Amino acid sequence: MNYPPSIQKLIDIFSKFPTVGPRTAARFVFYLMRMKKEEVDEILNSISNLKKNVKICSLCFNPFEPASVKTTAGAGEGLCSICSNPSRDKTLLCIVANETDLVALEKIKKYNGLYFILGGTVSTLKKADIEKLRVKELEERLKSHPEIKEIILALNPTTEGEATALYLERVLKPLGKKITRLGRGLPVGGELEYADEETLGSALDGRR
Amino acid sequence: MNYPPSIQKLIDIFSKFPTVGPRTAARFVFYLMRMKKEEVDEILNSISNLKKNVKICSLCFNPFEPASVKTTAGAGEGLCSICSNPSRDKTLLCIVANETDLVALEKIKKYNGLYFILGGTVSTLKKADIEKLRVKELEERLKSHPEIKEIILALNPTTEGEATALYLERVLKPLGKKITRLGRGLPVGGELEYADEETLGSALDGRR
Amino acid sequence: MNYPPSIQKLIDIFSKFPTVGPRTAARFVFYLMRMKKEEVDEILNSISNLKKNVKICSLCFNPFEPASVKTTAGAGEGLCSICSNPSRDKTLLCIVANETDLVALEKIKKYNGLYFILGGTVSTLKKADIEKLRVKELEERLKSHPEIKEIILALNPTTEGEATALYLERVLKPLGKKITRLGRGLPVGGELEYADEETLGSALDGRR
Amino acid sequence: MNYPPSIQKLIDIFSKFPTVGPRTAARFVFYLMRMKKEEVDEILNSISNLKKNVKICSLCFNPFEPASVKTTAGAGEGLCSICSNPSRDKTLLCIVANETDLVALEKIKKYNGLYFILGGTVSTLKKADIEKLRVKELEERLKSHPEIKEIILALNPTTEGEATALYLERVLKPLGKKITRLGRGLPVGGELEYADEETLGSALDGRR
Repeated sequence: MNYPPSIQKLIDIFSKFPTVGPRTAARFVFYLMRMKKEEVDEILNSISNLKKNVKICSLCFNPFEPASVKTTAGAGEGLCSICSNPSRDKTLLCIVANETDLVALEKIKKYNGLYFILGGTVSTLKKADIEKLRVKELEERLKSHPEIKEIILALNPTTEGEATALYLERVLKPLGKKITRLGRGLPVGGELEYADEETLGSALDGRR
Repeated sequence: MNYPPSIQKLIDIFSKFPTVGPRTAARFVFYLMRMKKEEVDEILNSISNLKKNVKICSLCFNPFEPASVKTTAGAGEGLCSICSNPSRDKTLLCIVANETDLVALEKIKKYNGLYFILGGTVSTLKKADIEKLRVKELEERLKSHPEIKEIILALNPTTEGEATALYLERVLKPLGKKITRLGRGLPVGGELEYADEETLGSALDGRR
Repeated sequence: MNYPPSIQKLIDIFSKFPTVGPRTAARFVFYLMRMKKEEVDEILNSISNLKKNVKICSLCFNPFEPASVKTTAGAGEGLCSICSNPSRDKTLLCIVANETDLVALEKIKKYNGLYFILGGTVSTLKKADIEKLRVKELEERLKSHPEIKEIILALNPTTEGEATALYLERVLKPLGKKITRLGRGLPVGGELEYADEETLGSALDGRR
Repeated sequence: MNYPPSIQKLIDIFSKFPTVGPRTAARFVFYLMRMKKEEVDEILNSISNLKKNVKICSLCFNPFEPASVKTTAGAGEGLCSICSNPSRDKTLLCIVANETDLVALEKIKKYNGLYFILGGTVSTLKKADIEKLRVKELEERLKSHPEIKEIILALNPTTEGEATALYLERVLKPLGKKITRLGRGLPVGGELEYADEETLGSALDGRR
């Protein structure tokens, strides 16, 4: 059985959302169909407001909403609440792949430096792939902000994250700044006996 | 860290979508933010077209798109392609909880009768819960279609599905029609040794 | 690092136990090493008693302990408590792959016939594979027990179980007895929407 | 259905093996029952040889087989191949909970110091629990080996491992040696976004 075209069209669109397959996409569409008109209108408004209201920080590329930052003392034009916060440590720059990684790091309330959202990671060093990342923007930021002393590459310890970190290290090395990576080791709840050799080796090297 | 209000609003909306939690909802929003304006407009159009273009079949409550059914011989007004298909067996009525269950059954191409979408299942027999189901519509359909000889309760063998099936059996019994349920037993790939007692008992009873 | 030979030897032995890998096998050995001498002796005695005390039923190949069956009225020589139980239905023969399948079926207390333990299943119909099964013994049992009216093939609905069931059906067909298989369908807690097509088709065919 | 007593007895014994439940234990017993007598004898011999042939190292409590260490230069009486190896670094002592943790660390070939097997971990600091660990033996070893400069607490970052590490730190502090723990952080393949706050905090603190 085929779905009616208007339903299939929306299933195709939702299937491209992260983590969504065609079955879940179909459930989304039927969920929308059961909604009242006002509820659907609310979704439509929220989506179209998104691009209108939310700006991208010109320094770190974090999305922010100008109106909601206004009250922060010193909020510059086009700067998010982190970049415009005078009490953040401007000598530390943490490079993350995505907005959600930034949120994860802010949640632990241990990091007081600034950020840079790279826009993803790459699995190969093909030019076309690398150009999707904000590498040029990163270089410019580092050149125009000599106060940055340490660059923390907070990329996932996955194959993609590692390849991207190696590439950035090579590109950023000439700038002569300290470059670090997040510590590797056993996660909370992990077991030595079942850890892979690389993780266990890192845990041993990184003992404190 | 808090998200900007326009982002948080949309996260809250997506978090109510089936199977979606706040983390996935946030990824949806960042996915939308990275889209081009034309792509976002396509989503907005597809969602607003949904309610405009898609009708609900007045017999089985299956969504359908009038234009796409037009060519089917005998397509009545307000009837989906299954209900308006003269070659389907009108003596069989299969009751399913949701649209996706109907799609799953159509996919196996073994059932040639008609359907009725109940609109969900209930965990309790509270009046408020039961009124969310299309029980009255079902009774009307059965009364106005005396040609129906067998009612197949194709509800999930879960606690909710069972409670709903028991309730429907009691309500529909006075109509004097044959009422059946999907066979229970071991699924493909299942193992006798790990089957629960009820499933194994059903498999034994239903041996053929 | 290599384990001492006496430890490695036992790890190799335990690694062949069903479901056990080398890591779990190592944990078994260290568990044994921490035991007191009397506890180890108890294990050694229990293992060596197993073959001494436990007999295999000459009819169904179920293991049983003669002393423990003694009290059952009519316990023949070499017969287990099920085969020697006069109140079991001797017209039904349920063929299972393994002892644990028999136990699973007995647990549900719904089956009152007799059993035959085939000794496994086959993935191919190679002669060498088939000869590991008790097919000849099964044919003899059926010929010498004309009171058997129905043969239930209670094999797993897996590829191996299916191949074995098809083979047995072919071999047993000339005997002219009724041959059935356990019903297939949705297991308790299963969901229509996620069922594979074969399972859903069986559930529809087997509706009751 | 009940198993014959000789089978049930062995199921009970195997059910106490680490990671084994009654169902797996039953499979072990049927596996033994299908074995030839010579194979069962081999298991019996291997188990009874275990305690005869394998000694426990008097320094680190690692099991070893005297005959197999003989060829190692300098193999003392009662010492395992690691403790009697003159090229291992005697200033480093790594404390592990179990033999399998020692094996996991040896496998990565990055650690060249010595070990001490504590014999487990504790979830509470109840006297009865702590007395199951080799705390006194550890204190004696440290006092009689002043060359040890660093004690590495290589315990799992689980609740039990943490409680044990905290206890050992308190007990060993008066000895004035450097005490370290394995580094915590993201494991290979881990993702920042899904890391718990403590792991992510450790990864940030331990950046290098």
